[in-house]
Amino acid sequence: MKKIALTGIKPTGTPHIGNYLGAIKPALELAKNYDARYFIADYHALNSIKDPKSLNELTYEIAATWLAFGLNTKEVLFYKQSDIPEIFELSVFLSAFTAKGLMNRAHAYKAVVAANKENNKDDDFNINMGLFTYPVLMAADILMFDTNVVPVGKDQKQHIEIAVDIAQAINYNYKKEILTIPEPLINQTMELIPGLDGRKMSKSYNNVISPFLPTKKLRKLVMKIKTNSQGIEEAKNPDECNVFALYKLFASKSEQNDLRKRYEAGGMGWGNAKQTLFEKLEEVFAPYRENYNTIINDKAEIDRMLREGALKAREISSKTMQRLRNSAGL
Amino acid sequence: MKKIALTGIKPTGTPHIGNYLGAIKPALELAKNYDARYFIADYHALNSIKDPKSLNELTYEIAATWLAFGLNTKEVLFYKQSDIPEIFELSVFLSAFTAKGLMNRAHAYKAVVAANKENNKDDDFNINMGLFTYPVLMAADILMFDTNVVPVGKDQKQHIEIAVDIAQAINYNYKKEILTIPEPLINQTMELIPGLDGRKMSKSYNNVISPFLPTKKLRKLVMKIKTNSQGIEEAKNPDECNVFALYKLFASKSEQNDLRKRYEAGGMGWGNAKQTLFEKLEEVFAPYRENYNTIINDKAEIDRMLREGALKAREISSKTMQRLRNSAGL
Repeated sequence: MKKIALTGIKPTGTPHIGNYLGAIKPALELAKNYDARYFIADYHALNSIKDPKSLNELTYEIAATWLAFGLNTKEVLFYKQSDIPEIFELSVFLSAFTAKGLMNRAHAYKAVVAANKENNKDDDFNINMGLFTYPVLMAADILMFDTNVVPVGKDQKQHIEIAVDIAQAINYNYKKEILTIPEPLINQTMELIPGLDGRKMSKSYNNVISPFLPTKKLRKLVMKIKTNSQGIEEAKNPDECNVFALYKLFASKSEQNDLRKRYEAGGMGWGNAKQTLFEKLEEVFAPYRENYNTIINDKAEIDRMLREGALKAREISSKTMQRLRNSAGL
Repeated sequence: MKKIALTGIKPTGTPHIGNYLGAIKPALELAKNYDARYFIADYHALNSIKDPKSLNELTYEIAATWLAFGLNTKEVLFYKQSDIPEIFELSVFLSAFTAKGLMNRAHAYKAVVAANKENNKDDDFNINMGLFTYPVLMAADILMFDTNVVPVGKDQKQHIEIAVDIAQAINYNYKKEILTIPEPLINQTMELIPGLDGRKMSKSYNNVISPFLPTKKLRKLVMKIKTNSQGIEEAKNPDECNVFALYKLFASKSEQNDLRKRYEAGGMGWGNAKQTLFEKLEEVFAPYRENYNTIINDKAEIDRMLREGALKAREISSKTMQRLRNSAGL
């Protein structure tokens, strides 16, 4: 039997091509070797998104994004967290076995406290209980589905450690292996993906490229990528160039070598290099963009797929919860 | 339309006659003037009761106790918290609108922190997230059922204040009166009910009288009530006597006067006074005891009543939750 891999998707913004390469693509590839399960973490998003229209739209956008990139609901499980009531019951159950100290030491919470201290604010200024308790809800997300591995970045390893701690406390108390102990699957090969200005591509730097931009807008954005001020005739170093760094992420080895030669030979202006990158991005993303536009324009179909996913997911979650309730005497 | 009153019942121990007079009887009387709703807070109990057998038995015992004292499931709503999955979802929802500072200031949490400090322990030593977050779960219990009033002791007023704070934050954010703002209904007339040793009747003093004791055991216990060492012939002061204090709680005015005279006349030994109290307790509680024994021996019937209550309760809770989800864009 395949191991179970669970990926959570927080609908807090439209993904950029850095997210695609760093998270979406590797997560979708898990389906080859794992019983892969994906969920939209809309209740996690509620902690920061209090505007109903945004939350609703972002949820559809993120669903359409993953579907456009090839998430196949016939082969993998795909559901919305808010459709699985057992997750919230499990979260309350887990709380009874979660030392408060674990939450005090959670990175995300500590980071906000540190920022508050720096600004001479009360430690817990502007911190809601959703933020403070989200590692418990995340543990419920994971433990509910007998998850073996959770793909995470290095900075999220702690979430899995917390889920492990809680699961072990419960198994120990009831003297049974009620909950499966998960493991982190750390994405080691994650390269730095540069944004328009050469810094890491990130929404907070306002330097991102969206994968679903219409052709003209995509071209305009690529033309804005920061380069040095070398003239057309000068020989250029591809290894110190954002345009080339982005091109490398999508082009084949031989395409990379061709562009490398044009850099080193001189006589190629930045406009040409950018045009080459744009054409590559257009080639890679145009089919996904088409998928995306079809999917986002049929929200009823997204609803249908998520509803179907929820039905399948609840077959699992209701069993997990029943097992726990029986063990606990509830 | 009648106002809605909600009473939570935590199954953490068998009630004594102090609980009966101070909490159960007044709560049951609410049904005269309110749309009265009662629930067994078994998930709150899970925070402290990790033994499945105890939790299971205490839940049946507490259900049987309230039914024995006259809770009429044909007239009022009676359900188990763990049967209402919407409560847990609401708890997660509320968390996103609950300032962590509110929890830091919750009395029960602060009391444990103070005890830890005194014992030179870490502030959060032995504190689980169930304890820390229980005011949020309690707010969910209350806000789910459009509750207007919650009968509480003075020391529990803060719970209602927290629920009000959270409900107002949500109504304000979504610019709609989605949640009903509850009020505390403070039991002002609560007399001190003395235990066997004259201190307040309390499990922690080990001085309680259970209302369902078999006749012989009840008599034996009453005979243990602490009195002074006056001899039979001496005149006695009923107003400084535990036996009389307990008798007053159950006897009519004229019965009280009769016993008062026997105290003041002299010639009555403590055994006689205790016998009078025992007979009164037996008279009051024997019918309840009979009810209790019938009910506790038919757990399938308790299950059936709670299941029926849960069905009715979920008609309300699913609507509340749908209203909230629609408002939030979930």
